[in-house]
Amino acid sequence: MDKLIEAIIAKDYNPTVVGLDPKLDYVPKFILDECLNEADPFAGAAEALYRFNKTLIDSLCDIVPAVKPQSAYYEMYGIEGLKCLQKTMEYAKSKGMYVILDVKRGDIGATAEAYSHAYIGKTDIGGKEYRAFGPDSLTVNPYLGTDGLKPFVKDAEENDKSLFILVKTSNPSSGELQDLIVDGEHIYEKTAALVRALGETSVGQYGYSKVGAVVGATYPEQLKELRAKMPNTFFLVPGYGAQGGKAEDVALAFDKNRLGAIVNSSRGIMCAYKKGDWKEEQFGEAARAEAIRMRDDILAYVK
Amino acid sequence: MDKLIEAIIAKDYNPTVVGLDPKLDYVPKFILDECLNEADPFAGAAEALYRFNKTLIDSLCDIVPAVKPQSAYYEMYGIEGLKCLQKTMEYAKSKGMYVILDVKRGDIGATAEAYSHAYIGKTDIGGKEYRAFGPDSLTVNPYLGTDGLKPFVKDAEENDKSLFILVKTSNPSSGELQDLIVDGEHIYEKTAALVRALGETSVGQYGYSKVGAVVGATYPEQLKELRAKMPNTFFLVPGYGAQGGKAEDVALAFDKNRLGAIVNSSRGIMCAYKKGDWKEEQFGEAARAEAIRMRDDILAYVK
Repeated sequence: MDKLIEAIIAKDYNPTVVGLDPKLDYVPKFILDECLNEADPFAGAAEALYRFNKTLIDSLCDIVPAVKPQSAYYEMYGIEGLKCLQKTMEYAKSKGMYVILDVKRGDIGATAEAYSHAYIGKTDIGGKEYRAFGPDSLTVNPYLGTDGLKPFVKDAEENDKSLFILVKTSNPSSGELQDLIVDGEHIYEKTAALVRALGETSVGQYGYSKVGAVVGATYPEQLKELRAKMPNTFFLVPGYGAQGGKAEDVALAFDKNRLGAIVNSSRGIMCAYKKGDWKEEQFGEAARAEAIRMRDDILAYVK
Repeated sequence: MDKLIEAIIAKDYNPTVVGLDPKLDYVPKFILDECLNEADPFAGAAEALYRFNKTLIDSLCDIVPAVKPQSAYYEMYGIEGLKCLQKTMEYAKSKGMYVILDVKRGDIGATAEAYSHAYIGKTDIGGKEYRAFGPDSLTVNPYLGTDGLKPFVKDAEENDKSLFILVKTSNPSSGELQDLIVDGEHIYEKTAALVRALGETSVGQYGYSKVGAVVGATYPEQLKELRAKMPNTFFLVPGYGAQGGKAEDVALAFDKNRLGAIVNSSRGIMCAYKKGDWKEEQFGEAARAEAIRMRDDILAYVK
């Protein structure tokens, strides 16, 4: 997790990660007009998304430490969408950004290992090892228990990568399973204990392990509680902005060194040009202005 | 779910789904020798996997109703692996097999919708709709609650597809979260109740809804209990064979009409040629012999 933390510090403690979850609705019309074509609709859509992402990355890379592409929005454009995902990740890395790929994979032991190799480990082919996709970090689903998590932890440790395991998600019905109470503890607390234990062997120089947790900004009480219970766990915090999480809420995720969390904004930054007096062509500048506003909004509450 | 059930009945009530989770270790050496090349390792590996899958499908399609490719084993070969996955699914469908894609996706509302569109729904591009990947059925992870499940249910209903939601998985540590007890009920029972409720609007002519459940053969008591509690839910049962589940265990998943479940075998069938006196070139025949043995083994216990 040190690499992410150093990127945050280098960007003046900006704790923002830009979610690259591009729907075609978000992409300015002039890009769609240039790219979409009925002869190869998926390739056209993927090209539009890539141009949109590339300008966003160019506009943000000197002030924002990380991007978080959400795999679903690429998978829905098939193979061409996945090529766009791979190109987007490579471009963001070439611009010095830390790449958290949001895939929420989770499976039983051997299959979890295959997913882990695909994203943060290496694939063995004929005795040589290759990287299939190359993000710095991956989101993981804990429903299958530790034997489904350990392969990811192993690859994170061996390849200097990091993980964010779902603990308390930001959505309205996250409580249906996560808030159930067992022996006086919520399920999300049980998950938190698993996550904390899996990170014990990889605590870095800033006090955080390679095994992070996803904790939503929309549940500030739980965020505060989990921050106290997971002192060595870095948080990925979705739910700021459009979903309702406020700066004073997400501030609860930070430690006294202004570290401990990275806060996601997707639509708020990608679609910033749709608010105010921006022209479509200025979508990169609008995203940059919103990223600065968000940074200052959050840091005002982080002491 | 009627399409799957009709495929099972048409194959003499064979309740077997062949897991296509191909590791290169499983592929006979003569295929690897023909396909692998260091200049383009992922393309070579993907070609080897496709040839392996194709022969298995050819050898099994007249006696086995369904295949279940596990996405992880394709994602680990990058874009080329995903092309192989798509070709494999198309080939299996062209041979009349029902395709259950095992991806265990799960996310919050809007993102769950994107995943659902990618696999069992349609992707809107410029006002027209296209299919990105085309399996008949998809596995889904319930950790995020109903708002993460509903988009899949909607697409299943509108596109005549089906789902299998994880309820009680077959792996050793599945109990860490799934077996926790809340108000006298296990988490997997809570999940089972969610799954049952989501299927209420789509019960078909055989009495089963489009919303199925994954319940492992390795926990026969829970399998029996869930069969009783979920009378309208079709089960996908992993864990037979290599993981330790026996025919008398999986038989608990069936109803009095010899329906109600489909049982997965991956390695047991794919690697059947490695046991006994088979030559490498006979891997398809060996898989067929094992599929017949497995069918007869299970049906002997299904009354």
